[in-house]
Amino acid sequence: MHGVPRRRRCRLGFQFVTAPTRAKLADGRELLFFSLPGHTPSPVADRRPLPPRQPCQSQLRFDRTTGQWVIIAALRQDRTYKPPPDQCPLCPGPTGMTSEVPAPDYDVVVFENRFPSLSGEGESALRVSEGFASAPGHGRCEVICFSSNHTGSFADLEPAHARLVVDAWRQRTADLMARPGIEQVFCFENRGEEIGVTLSHPHGQIYGYPYLTPRTSAMLGQADEHRKLNGSNLFADLLAWELADGSRVIARTDLFTAFVPFAARWPVEVHIYPNRFVHNVVELEPGELDDFAQVYLDVLRRFDRMYSAPLPYMSALHQFADTDAQREGYFHVELMSIRRSAVALKYLAASESAMDAFISDVTPEDVAQRLRELA
Amino acid sequence: MHGVPRRRRCRLGFQFVTAPTRAKLADGRELLFFSLPGHTPSPVADRRPLPPRQPCQSQLRFDRTTGQWVIIAALRQDRTYKPPPDQCPLCPGPTGMTSEVPAPDYDVVVFENRFPSLSGEGESALRVSEGFASAPGHGRCEVICFSSNHTGSFADLEPAHARLVVDAWRQRTADLMARPGIEQVFCFENRGEEIGVTLSHPHGQIYGYPYLTPRTSAMLGQADEHRKLNGSNLFADLLAWELADGSRVIARTDLFTAFVPFAARWPVEVHIYPNRFVHNVVELEPGELDDFAQVYLDVLRRFDRMYSAPLPYMSALHQFADTDAQREGYFHVELMSIRRSAVALKYLAASESAMDAFISDVTPEDVAQRLRELA
Repeated sequence: MHGVPRRRRCRLGFQFVTAPTRAKLADGRELLFFSLPGHTPSPVADRRPLPPRQPCQSQLRFDRTTGQWVIIAALRQDRTYKPPPDQCPLCPGPTGMTSEVPAPDYDVVVFENRFPSLSGEGESALRVSEGFASAPGHGRCEVICFSSNHTGSFADLEPAHARLVVDAWRQRTADLMARPGIEQVFCFENRGEEIGVTLSHPHGQIYGYPYLTPRTSAMLGQADEHRKLNGSNLFADLLAWELADGSRVIARTDLFTAFVPFAARWPVEVHIYPNRFVHNVVELEPGELDDFAQVYLDVLRRFDRMYSAPLPYMSALHQFADTDAQREGYFHVELMSIRRSAVALKYLAASESAMDAFISDVTPEDVAQRLRELA
Repeated sequence: MHGVPRRRRCRLGFQFVTAPTRAKLADGRELLFFSLPGHTPSPVADRRPLPPRQPCQSQLRFDRTTGQWVIIAALRQDRTYKPPPDQCPLCPGPTGMTSEVPAPDYDVVVFENRFPSLSGEGESALRVSEGFASAPGHGRCEVICFSSNHTGSFADLEPAHARLVVDAWRQRTADLMARPGIEQVFCFENRGEEIGVTLSHPHGQIYGYPYLTPRTSAMLGQADEHRKLNGSNLFADLLAWELADGSRVIARTDLFTAFVPFAARWPVEVHIYPNRFVHNVVELEPGELDDFAQVYLDVLRRFDRMYSAPLPYMSALHQFADTDAQREGYFHVELMSIRRSAVALKYLAASESAMDAFISDVTPEDVAQRLRELA
């Protein structure tokens, strides 16, 4: 699969108006600044006495009962856990002594995670050996700070700033997809202490997995089957059916659509699809990028109007490579929340956690109606 | 698949020494008392003015992107939520006015859930129609109270009492497996507020799903593939490998083995296997039933010694029918906890929830070592 991403990488010169400004952290990790027009980042030296980076310490283990890889990353047990606000490692650090971002300010910044679940460059394909099968936990874990404003959130961003985050996602996706051994690039955000977020500064993460994740494999399998039976793309058909039905659509532009899916698993779940088939954010055209940022902000702002406190949520960008194996993959975002009422959360207990059998306490149509009214 | 469970049902007469004592709740739901030798349950009339039971109100919806059914059960949004101890609906209610168990006392009791995710009797097989595919949420949801002691726990039970719970699981498994439209019987326990348990009285649940759950389907697919490649049973081989390796085994009798699996997903995860292949608890022989109760209690007691407070956990009995489709299914229990340290929980955030890509912060060997020392 290397040919395709490499070609894509070559196109970056004209796809991204401004290349990121690059810097290095004290232990050698990469740091990339993405800036709004007219802003020029001015990184300072990272003068923290960080211990040298360890070679990849995590391991992939193959679970033969499910056919899925599990990442064992014991070093993460010691990661930074809910630091006080004046020690936030994601706020700008003009002295180069206090932060992961040694600079007086920034718009959007991406850097390699200091406590990565996956690191280092691996083989181009994992193989499952006999018996207990394992492999080094190669791959990439990055942090993306959406804003230097510690108390802000993605939903608070100005549209141009949200669009800059989308540009950063594109640049990172193109870069990581081109690397050997990375099979899938996953841009995501976990927001809220309720889902275990240990740093409250608005940020997301970007993973380069060395294998296709189980959910992605399942989706591609379903889409291949659908193509065989119907001669059409599964996700395009789903979008068309949702539009024809209309009862779960919550927002729509000429280029993007947001809806609660028919078989939603979560008490709040919204999917955002481009109206045109593309595999990933890199393939989006400028007008689509604008609409994507606009619809994404619209959905997040509706989320935060649902209850008196900001909604905890997870946001997952489902991206695919333009390869034979992933040909049917249709880029879309899946947003979900565990909040099922003002006072109660949805927990993934034994039915969900042990059997993958999801039980939802709300009807998707009711949730869509509620979200439509929160415009 | 009806033939086999029905035959099994006919064997109950000599497999269960004492049949349960049956009663009805005010709204017609079934209630079954399982008693220790010498104890005779004395249910009283349930005099609560309960509203009549509704016909099945939940719905199954097919998620075409994953190929999985999702249960939409909106009526559960109003279920009992953390009642004060003096209003516990699982404590014995000698007046017949306060509890789901109208009786002065009980050992183990099973009743139909008042707020079921699945109810009513359905067709023998679900079919996926074109477009948005759905089906009535037929099936069965039962509550099993392990003890009348409100502040107790499964780990506190005397061995004979734990064995009585196992007998109740067997009777319910045999009964539900024989019912048309039930494809899988799942006995489980969710323990701890940390995983969303809303009633603290020690209890578990029993689900009769109208479909094979996604995890079970995946396991059977893996086991069929393993049989084709190796001519042997996947689970039997895994158990043999774990025993040969030894580094993750934590407890063992002649008839049962408990170990942390090689590719554990959870910060605490233990699997309990019978040393002999059986599909489900109904097929266990008396000596195996004793050892099962003993090893299960042993594991739970080690769990509660890990930290200063009782460990939140989920316990999942993976049971299979003796049918062609489920022939390779090897009965075992999977226990897992989200507690990853004295102060921190493991949350299923975007990697796990959106991509099914699990990341564990601990090595299975370390956890096994810790659990071995807590004997």
